[in-house]
Amino acid sequence: MSGAKTGTVRAGVIGATGYTGLELLRLLAGHPRVQLCAATARRERGRPLGEVCPALRGRFDLVLGDVQDTELQRCDVVFAAAPNATAMQHVPELLDAGVRVIDLSADFRLRTPALWQQWYGQPHACPKLLAEAVYGLPELYRERIAGARLVANPGCYPTAALLALIPLLEERAIVGPVAIDAKSGVSGAGRKTDVALNYAETAESLKAYGLAGHRHLPEMRQVLEEVHGEPMELTFVPHLVPMKRGILTTIYTHVRNRDADVQALLERRYEREPFVQVLPPGSEPATGTILGCNDCRLAAHRLRDGKGLVLLSAIDNLVKGAAGQALQNMNLMFGFDEKEGLDGGAWFP
Amino acid sequence: MSGAKTGTVRAGVIGATGYTGLELLRLLAGHPRVQLCAATARRERGRPLGEVCPALRGRFDLVLGDVQDTELQRCDVVFAAAPNATAMQHVPELLDAGVRVIDLSADFRLRTPALWQQWYGQPHACPKLLAEAVYGLPELYRERIAGARLVANPGCYPTAALLALIPLLEERAIVGPVAIDAKSGVSGAGRKTDVALNYAETAESLKAYGLAGHRHLPEMRQVLEEVHGEPMELTFVPHLVPMKRGILTTIYTHVRNRDADVQALLERRYEREPFVQVLPPGSEPATGTILGCNDCRLAAHRLRDGKGLVLLSAIDNLVKGAAGQALQNMNLMFGFDEKEGLDGGAWFP
Amino acid sequence: MSGAKTGTVRAGVIGATGYTGLELLRLLAGHPRVQLCAATARRERGRPLGEVCPALRGRFDLVLGDVQDTELQRCDVVFAAAPNATAMQHVPELLDAGVRVIDLSADFRLRTPALWQQWYGQPHACPKLLAEAVYGLPELYRERIAGARLVANPGCYPTAALLALIPLLEERAIVGPVAIDAKSGVSGAGRKTDVALNYAETAESLKAYGLAGHRHLPEMRQVLEEVHGEPMELTFVPHLVPMKRGILTTIYTHVRNRDADVQALLERRYEREPFVQVLPPGSEPATGTILGCNDCRLAAHRLRDGKGLVLLSAIDNLVKGAAGQALQNMNLMFGFDEKEGLDGGAWFP
Amino acid sequence: MSGAKTGTVRAGVIGATGYTGLELLRLLAGHPRVQLCAATARRERGRPLGEVCPALRGRFDLVLGDVQDTELQRCDVVFAAAPNATAMQHVPELLDAGVRVIDLSADFRLRTPALWQQWYGQPHACPKLLAEAVYGLPELYRERIAGARLVANPGCYPTAALLALIPLLEERAIVGPVAIDAKSGVSGAGRKTDVALNYAETAESLKAYGLAGHRHLPEMRQVLEEVHGEPMELTFVPHLVPMKRGILTTIYTHVRNRDADVQALLERRYEREPFVQVLPPGSEPATGTILGCNDCRLAAHRLRDGKGLVLLSAIDNLVKGAAGQALQNMNLMFGFDEKEGLDGGAWFP
Repeated sequence: MSGAKTGTVRAGVIGATGYTGLELLRLLAGHPRVQLCAATARRERGRPLGEVCPALRGRFDLVLGDVQDTELQRCDVVFAAAPNATAMQHVPELLDAGVRVIDLSADFRLRTPALWQQWYGQPHACPKLLAEAVYGLPELYRERIAGARLVANPGCYPTAALLALIPLLEERAIVGPVAIDAKSGVSGAGRKTDVALNYAETAESLKAYGLAGHRHLPEMRQVLEEVHGEPMELTFVPHLVPMKRGILTTIYTHVRNRDADVQALLERRYEREPFVQVLPPGSEPATGTILGCNDCRLAAHRLRDGKGLVLLSAIDNLVKGAAGQALQNMNLMFGFDEKEGLDGGAWFP
Repeated sequence: MSGAKTGTVRAGVIGATGYTGLELLRLLAGHPRVQLCAATARRERGRPLGEVCPALRGRFDLVLGDVQDTELQRCDVVFAAAPNATAMQHVPELLDAGVRVIDLSADFRLRTPALWQQWYGQPHACPKLLAEAVYGLPELYRERIAGARLVANPGCYPTAALLALIPLLEERAIVGPVAIDAKSGVSGAGRKTDVALNYAETAESLKAYGLAGHRHLPEMRQVLEEVHGEPMELTFVPHLVPMKRGILTTIYTHVRNRDADVQALLERRYEREPFVQVLPPGSEPATGTILGCNDCRLAAHRLRDGKGLVLLSAIDNLVKGAAGQALQNMNLMFGFDEKEGLDGGAWFP
Repeated sequence: MSGAKTGTVRAGVIGATGYTGLELLRLLAGHPRVQLCAATARRERGRPLGEVCPALRGRFDLVLGDVQDTELQRCDVVFAAAPNATAMQHVPELLDAGVRVIDLSADFRLRTPALWQQWYGQPHACPKLLAEAVYGLPELYRERIAGARLVANPGCYPTAALLALIPLLEERAIVGPVAIDAKSGVSGAGRKTDVALNYAETAESLKAYGLAGHRHLPEMRQVLEEVHGEPMELTFVPHLVPMKRGILTTIYTHVRNRDADVQALLERRYEREPFVQVLPPGSEPATGTILGCNDCRLAAHRLRDGKGLVLLSAIDNLVKGAAGQALQNMNLMFGFDEKEGLDGGAWFP
Repeated sequence: MSGAKTGTVRAGVIGATGYTGLELLRLLAGHPRVQLCAATARRERGRPLGEVCPALRGRFDLVLGDVQDTELQRCDVVFAAAPNATAMQHVPELLDAGVRVIDLSADFRLRTPALWQQWYGQPHACPKLLAEAVYGLPELYRERIAGARLVANPGCYPTAALLALIPLLEERAIVGPVAIDAKSGVSGAGRKTDVALNYAETAESLKAYGLAGHRHLPEMRQVLEEVHGEPMELTFVPHLVPMKRGILTTIYTHVRNRDADVQALLERRYEREPFVQVLPPGSEPATGTILGCNDCRLAAHRLRDGKGLVLLSAIDNLVKGAAGQALQNMNLMFGFDEKEGLDGGAWFP
């Protein structure tokens, strides 16, 4: 890898003009060891990036290309931020060309072709890669990510829920059903032309959705049950909140032993993690305090009586829930400091 | 009652310039059988209502008074929309004067002085009235409300949660813990000068609060356990959502019998209720579709496998959750059509 | 007209599911002398109104039809709330059938076919009707509206600007250029599937648009120059504001005479107008105080020195700027009280 | 200066927990040549910074101090971000101690004590410093800033308006009145406990304010008339927009000569400026594309006929309008690259 030799990696982005792609570009622009060499966007092919995305004006001197461009194959790493069922069309060729791939879509998150087809409604284009792809949650699979050719960057909801639950499952500290009430800002729905996402429809309104079955549920189940070692009763209800970014997840479950010290357990598990902050007892993290940064903030609340446990988990869906985590994975894959390019503070107000 | 004779009631409002009071005034202005005779606001005493509240400009030709004003005692009904621990100072005198009182604060919602003191941190000013006060949820206590001198108008969160849960508890259809994940717009926090409610702090942010114990929990517990007939494990987590109005409550529980028809049960229970709408199976009510109206919209979702049940309940916290329900109670108390003055449609967008 | 005889009018709405159409339906539902007989929406034909528009659930028992439906021709009045260049295809037939038409689109607002074609990019479908159509600004053309077969309901921006400027032009009180800085909520852009209107793009952002020439400029110019009697230098810059509804217009101009009493002039002009409120000197109307109601609030500010004049004008773009004004026009056309169905108060907060 | 020797400066912040102070801390955290040594906040004295400001959690290991702390006097530079009339109490002492001061309040922006007293309602505490203080607009006074002991950081509205107007006045390219219609997000009002800034009051509403005379008017006039060389007719109307950050200024004026090339003039003036971007002809800058960055984006629009000119200017009020510009000034004062610490991209969405 020529990039690695000189200390920088040559990066490409597929689907650069969606919300995830744009956030990736913002972060890449600030990463000292990355050179952006190619960015593609099907509909805006041939237009300068700064013209298509005024927020990036002056940051990159790049013309948007097409995913067919051979420029991508000359990259050290390609981030795929296209809609689902797109990356899988191109990943085999990129891997063959020696490019490492971090896919931010759902194409490589489920481990079996059958499960993928069940939830995404079509056969997978390269089913053999499903087993090879590493699920890109550094707090769980750091070593495997470092050595991976293909990383499946986790979904935003799974990231928030998994980071809260994994330590408890690892210690077999909880029992019974787990209800995951997740609330996301509108950017989570992607940059789509859908009248339901119009400001006049979403502002000043709140709704649950996906009750019939959301695609992030099997993704969470797969990881949680692997950690837990047995089937779990999981309920997952996502909500659409009138804000641009941010996910807050409120998880309802029960501890196995009344005297379990959940706070200590979480603190111990994450004491060396650069991006997971276990807040002091009694804390109630607000998404507005982690906007734009890669942090996940956790809080645990035991109920007054009994074994009831409420976990709170806050992330920026476009950062730790997508582009930031992808960059964290890239840092691991190329041996950089895991925090490189991810040290910008949160925006407030 | 002179008002009742001529077909109109003389109404007064204590605490007219809070969000609940303002909404009450808006609704009273459109009620054909109410004459607003007095409105008080401690800090704005002596100022014309339309000057203090530009949104009401031209609606009322009234100067704001003080709660000591004898004008209140000449009303047929007084709505108390003052902060907690205020109404209880004045209600005995009003009742003695033959005025019927609908209190929108929490002063008369809990049934025992000890419980009230535990949650509100001071002794109750007229503990004997706690037993007399009728909890103003028409769908549960319609007849008692009609004959009441003193109605304790339910809290906003309890209204949303109770309407979803009562039918199931009446039929003993659910078992095990009940987790109530409630999300409210900012007006629910009242018209307070608190920097945490500043636009720049609340917009684009979401947080849970009250984990240590929210005052609406004992209120819900009291009603639910009365209906259920035994203690329940209730968890209640409220959230602050960046919108002005609206509550969406997502409830996680389990049915007792796998083949229970929750949809039919809800539909049957509410088929004659003018303000409770059980939505068709698969529905996901948005708070933005019931803004400004007295409706409560319910939806029930059985999970794919097993006994898991998710209930959704949406109200406008200032209408069905406060002022609208108060007017509904007034209609019952004075023998008016229950829908009188409450037939305005929702605002959309 | 059968409707008029029995005291009610049979009304139809073309384009019922746009934002303007929905607001019209909300207002029609509360109008005691209107019976909604037909509502059309091209894309949702055949679906129940309450299903397509959850906010109207339970208000109307009506299935959406097609503009071809003959039901429209049996109405006394048809409101056309379709996109521009739609109504003009259907209005001649409706008029021939004896139906009176209030068009809320721009199809009949400009008086000459050439001007219309210049701004709307196609020949007008029934150019002869342009001269017959009455511009539906009751404060200026009340009598002509009362007798009209076809009313061109004014645009939202023109309504706000004209009501501020007309009194001054009538009295020849201002001189020199007039700059109209107008700010509108997002619903003004219509219920379109445009990614630029996505919540994530519009929230927390503000922009000017239409600098190259906005279609509401010739509409304003036409009325203003008729009143003024000579050409004027008008500059009009609309802005998109992150809110659902509301227009605030700030107008910069100069008085002819330093000692002109603009406040008195405005108050005198509008003292009998039910929907125009001239605020006391020093006032700064907020759009948030007139949401959902048909009021236009005006304030005039003379600058400290010299002849500078700033006028402020606030309306709800969907009410006085569209559906409410249409209903006001209907009231005039059918001899009803001009305020009938328009007496609901503003929503606050 | 010890700081300068080792290549870093020791910085202090007075008023660290207001919105401007917080933004300053965010930027200072990312500046490679600044060491934050002291931060004060009157009300939160003694509390850890990360506890008071959750968004800064983990960024600084600092306890909030008091403005009396001698630690401030050991800094190389102190940023004063306190409310007006605070910094002037402390600046003389700091200057005497050899500390350079950048004041983000209005205390040193007006050049004469009489004018300051007229607008701020009290005598100035150190009137002699008014003449010494350099107005910190680098695009106009770069050299003087570099050598200054005391910099008066410009107000947010003046920054946006001046950058648009200065090039035209320098070339004497405009004539007649100038109307400045400015729109700001809510953070511009400061972190105040004012019910009028409550989310429920400001969201979904828009208003003009300060019509009777806003303190930023004399500040703008002072600079503009210095550049112009003679008195000007300036009208300035600020507006409060429901968004957290951002200012868009729309300026209405006229060119002196019909064939003036305003676009070229602006481009020429700013071609070497790192933070002022003159957009291509026809552009309409959105504040949402410059959030969090120090850019000012300008666009000029000539009206179709005549000499009318509309200028658009967009900044983030907390960055180029406050903290970012302060850092830019610090870079100049200490001989750093002017862009140091200011190269983070805009946040979008």
